[in-house]
Amino acid sequence: MYKIIYLNGRYMPIKEASISPLDRGFLFADGVYEHIQIYENKLFYPEKHLARLKRNLNAINIPALHSNAEWLTIFNTLIEKNHIDSGSNHIYLQVTRGADDHRAHVIPEKLTPTIFALTDISYLTKSIEGLAKGSRAVTIEDARRRDCCVKAISLLPNILARTYAVEHNATETIMLRDNLVTECASCNVFIVKNGIIMTPPLSSNILPGITRELTLELAAKNSMPYKEQPITKDELQNANEVWITSSSREIEPITTLDNKPVADGKAGPIWYKMITLYKDLY
Amino acid sequence: MYKIIYLNGRYMPIKEASISPLDRGFLFADGVYEHIQIYENKLFYPEKHLARLKRNLNAINIPALHSNAEWLTIFNTLIEKNHIDSGSNHIYLQVTRGADDHRAHVIPEKLTPTIFALTDISYLTKSIEGLAKGSRAVTIEDARRRDCCVKAISLLPNILARTYAVEHNATETIMLRDNLVTECASCNVFIVKNGIIMTPPLSSNILPGITRELTLELAAKNSMPYKEQPITKDELQNANEVWITSSSREIEPITTLDNKPVADGKAGPIWYKMITLYKDLY
Repeated sequence: MYKIIYLNGRYMPIKEASISPLDRGFLFADGVYEHIQIYENKLFYPEKHLARLKRNLNAINIPALHSNAEWLTIFNTLIEKNHIDSGSNHIYLQVTRGADDHRAHVIPEKLTPTIFALTDISYLTKSIEGLAKGSRAVTIEDARRRDCCVKAISLLPNILARTYAVEHNATETIMLRDNLVTECASCNVFIVKNGIIMTPPLSSNILPGITRELTLELAAKNSMPYKEQPITKDELQNANEVWITSSSREIEPITTLDNKPVADGKAGPIWYKMITLYKDLY
Repeated sequence: MYKIIYLNGRYMPIKEASISPLDRGFLFADGVYEHIQIYENKLFYPEKHLARLKRNLNAINIPALHSNAEWLTIFNTLIEKNHIDSGSNHIYLQVTRGADDHRAHVIPEKLTPTIFALTDISYLTKSIEGLAKGSRAVTIEDARRRDCCVKAISLLPNILARTYAVEHNATETIMLRDNLVTECASCNVFIVKNGIIMTPPLSSNILPGITRELTLELAAKNSMPYKEQPITKDELQNANEVWITSSSREIEPITTLDNKPVADGKAGPIWYKMITLYKDLY
């Protein structure tokens, strides 16, 4: 696992990789990241991830570092060096502002950003049959920062939320802010009600997930009714279907919410149609 | 600067210090920190900082690692090795959950935490005369996570806020949540109105600053009227005095707020009395 990683222009065994404790990623969570799926040995929609990376770097004033072609060369070299040729894997990429010679809050000019990338198995990716067994989620208050539309590494609230889920016999938390669904610790949320697929509209509180975007595109292309609109806790609890989406989990049906079954407690027909369309994308 | 630092049981030159990019501090901002002032060569109220460190580690389920005596040995060894014997300096201490062999949100059991500590000059500490010149602050919406009562390294909103201040010809931002003052990017906020010192009460949105606590203790001991109560934006704007407090800035009078003078635009008499009492503590 993580045999050969990429760090600042070099490929090396993970055990040899090191960063300075003065890296602002370590001191201040001053950085952004991407997670790109690899099916067999092919990157899945890397251009969408790279467009988001560019937006996120810009949002926190880290310079754009590479062209798409250069990023793809790094990712494909990692795939090659790690002999990834089967199964479901991913590229993890993190860019931080880099290390200064002292610790000060104010963003300094002209640091050299730190670029760290690796490949790993995507443990969460499952077959349709595996996904159809359904998952459990619990609701919590959204304690994250505003502007979580930027995919930043300031993830402490997210890891605490995911850990809370596991401690409560679930695999994800669905977060609410002012009684409205935002998202999960690392997924977006969809519900189905009366045949209509719904997900909260993008805002500063919601990460524009690539799987969210692909799901909406598939709904549009296949004439499946959908709406981007706010979802209340009540609407979540009374949905016919609840799904969570992410690059690694794809589209996962939540069949138990806060220890109660979602509708009849089984993965629903609209989910089944959507996951079939999604799996056909790769 | 940062000649000799401490990392995981060893003292070494900063240039030799390295951490794994799989450290959860780097990947997830999964850690906490403290900043302890050193006046001449003496630590300033280290026991208060160590009590808070213990609470913060407990809040995110990182085990208590050292006794107070052991922490003090580390800090004092740093002071000694770096020949700190004059001026205003500080210890920076950061504890993260440590490095796993892969990246996964859910908090793993039994990692060895990473402990990083260093000494540096406290650039912001000034004489009473220097402070009396006053500082400029700008107000912004508080975009931080809830639970910023825990002094965690998930500081991206804080560094963006501090940078915003500098870009707007100020040195700090005063943040508001639902029209109520919370704190600054790295300070607590006080106002004085009609002779009464006021600061927002502690809550999940407010870091329990050591300087905040010392300031309230000084007010109590010296029969200066004070209240912990919510402060609206309007009350902030119409205060007779505005102060910001932190270990490194001590008690700093804000004399310009959003480009307008605070009262007559000069450091006030109650601030002067308080900073004199504070400076007498060391």
